[in-house]
Amino acid sequence: MQDSIRAIQWDGDVLKLLDQRLLPHQEIYIEYRDVGAIAEAIQDMVVRGAPAIGITAAYGVVLAAKHHLEKSPDNWRTTIQADLDTLARSRPTAVNLMWAIERMRRVITQASAEPLNDLLREAKRIHEDDIAANKAMGEFGAQLIETPCGVLTHCNTGSLATGGYGTALGVIRSAYAADKITAVYADETRPWLQGARLTAWELAKDQIPVTLIVEGAASHLMKQGKVAWVIVGSDRIAANGDVANKIGTYQLAVSAKYHDVKFMVVAPTSTVDLNIAGGDDIPIEARSPQEVLNISGQAIAANGAQAWNPAFDVTPAALIDAIVTEKGVVLQPTTGKMLAMMEKS
Amino acid sequence: MQDSIRAIQWDGDVLKLLDQRLLPHQEIYIEYRDVGAIAEAIQDMVVRGAPAIGITAAYGVVLAAKHHLEKSPDNWRTTIQADLDTLARSRPTAVNLMWAIERMRRVITQASAEPLNDLLREAKRIHEDDIAANKAMGEFGAQLIETPCGVLTHCNTGSLATGGYGTALGVIRSAYAADKITAVYADETRPWLQGARLTAWELAKDQIPVTLIVEGAASHLMKQGKVAWVIVGSDRIAANGDVANKIGTYQLAVSAKYHDVKFMVVAPTSTVDLNIAGGDDIPIEARSPQEVLNISGQAIAANGAQAWNPAFDVTPAALIDAIVTEKGVVLQPTTGKMLAMMEKS
Repeated sequence: MQDSIRAIQWDGDVLKLLDQRLLPHQEIYIEYRDVGAIAEAIQDMVVRGAPAIGITAAYGVVLAAKHHLEKSPDNWRTTIQADLDTLARSRPTAVNLMWAIERMRRVITQASAEPLNDLLREAKRIHEDDIAANKAMGEFGAQLIETPCGVLTHCNTGSLATGGYGTALGVIRSAYAADKITAVYADETRPWLQGARLTAWELAKDQIPVTLIVEGAASHLMKQGKVAWVIVGSDRIAANGDVANKIGTYQLAVSAKYHDVKFMVVAPTSTVDLNIAGGDDIPIEARSPQEVLNISGQAIAANGAQAWNPAFDVTPAALIDAIVTEKGVVLQPTTGKMLAMMEKS
Repeated sequence: MQDSIRAIQWDGDVLKLLDQRLLPHQEIYIEYRDVGAIAEAIQDMVVRGAPAIGITAAYGVVLAAKHHLEKSPDNWRTTIQADLDTLARSRPTAVNLMWAIERMRRVITQASAEPLNDLLREAKRIHEDDIAANKAMGEFGAQLIETPCGVLTHCNTGSLATGGYGTALGVIRSAYAADKITAVYADETRPWLQGARLTAWELAKDQIPVTLIVEGAASHLMKQGKVAWVIVGSDRIAANGDVANKIGTYQLAVSAKYHDVKFMVVAPTSTVDLNIAGGDDIPIEARSPQEVLNISGQAIAANGAQAWNPAFDVTPAALIDAIVTEKGVVLQPTTGKMLAMMEKS
């Protein structure tokens, strides 16, 4: 249940982000005072993880409001709109970004004597609510694991990807604390190596033993009976329970089904997009081929090779055993079950 | 149908191996005059690929024989045995290694006035036969592709992995020349990145366009209908058609089955081990965790992380549509069909 990492920190008038591109070798916080720089930080993956992006954007709106209130106090509600759009465009797949901006937009439209205070309060609430949601999901998810077993996770869904504690990694933290996990396997998650660089770093800090595998070894791992659950996060969940998540997730789900390994998706309700009926309509970000052709800035492929680099894929609800949100657990998700869960208070 | 790469070259009394650890950045041949150094070269993956390992070992036996003939001309057939054992132990999974040493052992036991000449002739025959087998498999495999389509390959199975031309990559070369391939996708194949470093390099040399993907993207690629065939090589095929190959192969086969993508294994009969009934009995090499924890000598994971690094996995025959050898094609392999194929002249 430990976790002392806070990758997103509001400090007076400054947003500090732990530069996740440099982990695990360097722990450096970058200070941001400008919303444009924050949009670039999201695009360039200084900060990543759907909930973390949403929280960062919320603080970005505070900085944007400060700027526009000073510059044009009478019509800042109009002049700020372009900055909100820039933030919203910084990454296309994680809906938490749009969700957080939408929450901030509602505060902007309110008549208020102290709009900046109200906006900062809302951003902090988004941040704190996310941590609370993670802790709740940790408990819900851990309860699903009936027999102590090995688990496999993908990408990074921990404190670094959220306000703190984590979604899938939060479940792993809670289940490990409850002695329900005998081994944590993390795949390295190319091309960004979030598993190797970030998840291993977080778990090592919490003294939870972790074993890395290359992604190609996941099916071999399952065949050998070393894991009973695959536990992942999400960047957007459609109304029918289809889940967009880091590229490689869908493959794990296909393989889990083949091996009778259970598949759990853990994400706050801010990740659920009821405006999208099914996964085929979720926009999938295509990132630069250079991320595949290079590792840590060093070319690995021959000149002339091209690369295809979709950052996410979609796992259909039919391959998912459980979706865990802070409102509870949806087993074998369907549109009806998802709507019922979302309507809970 | 091009291919000018010869990674294994016999030159007078010297074996030259293209150091595949340095590709694609440097093309450096290392000269070997000593069988112990050759065993280390196989272990350290200066040369890799099941057929290439077998050919290298055959030349290694020639060098060993030269040494022992000079040192103890009367009982060299006895003193050489330890060197043969060292070679055979250099890697455990690829049976071509044992097969080539066995062929050389038979020549050693023959009474001959010029044993060194006979051994060199046998090694060269193993080498030339492998290239001829590859060309034959190229034709057989290409014929299986009925409609022009995209294909996905794994690891490196080309000139670098064989005497020349390639097994799975030989099929791709032949099918591309016959206008049966619209796109070649290669997954990068962690941890050694044979796809990114070697396959892309070979195909670029032959001016065959290649698109790299991370391994996690393979299922997403299949779901989008971009490939109709997965084409791979093998390090050992059991009597029932179960196939050991580079880690990640099994996962591709599971996913191919789920997506109705066809799965072709291409390997010479020297890869078939009739002494092993099924894949569960094939020894799987466990390599150092450091190969996963580092890339190009640079640490990627946090201190304290462990890694599990099986170098191969086993794909059951039930997931394989075709096994292609130089003797022909086995569709939906079974023990009976495999035995019938092996008995062909």
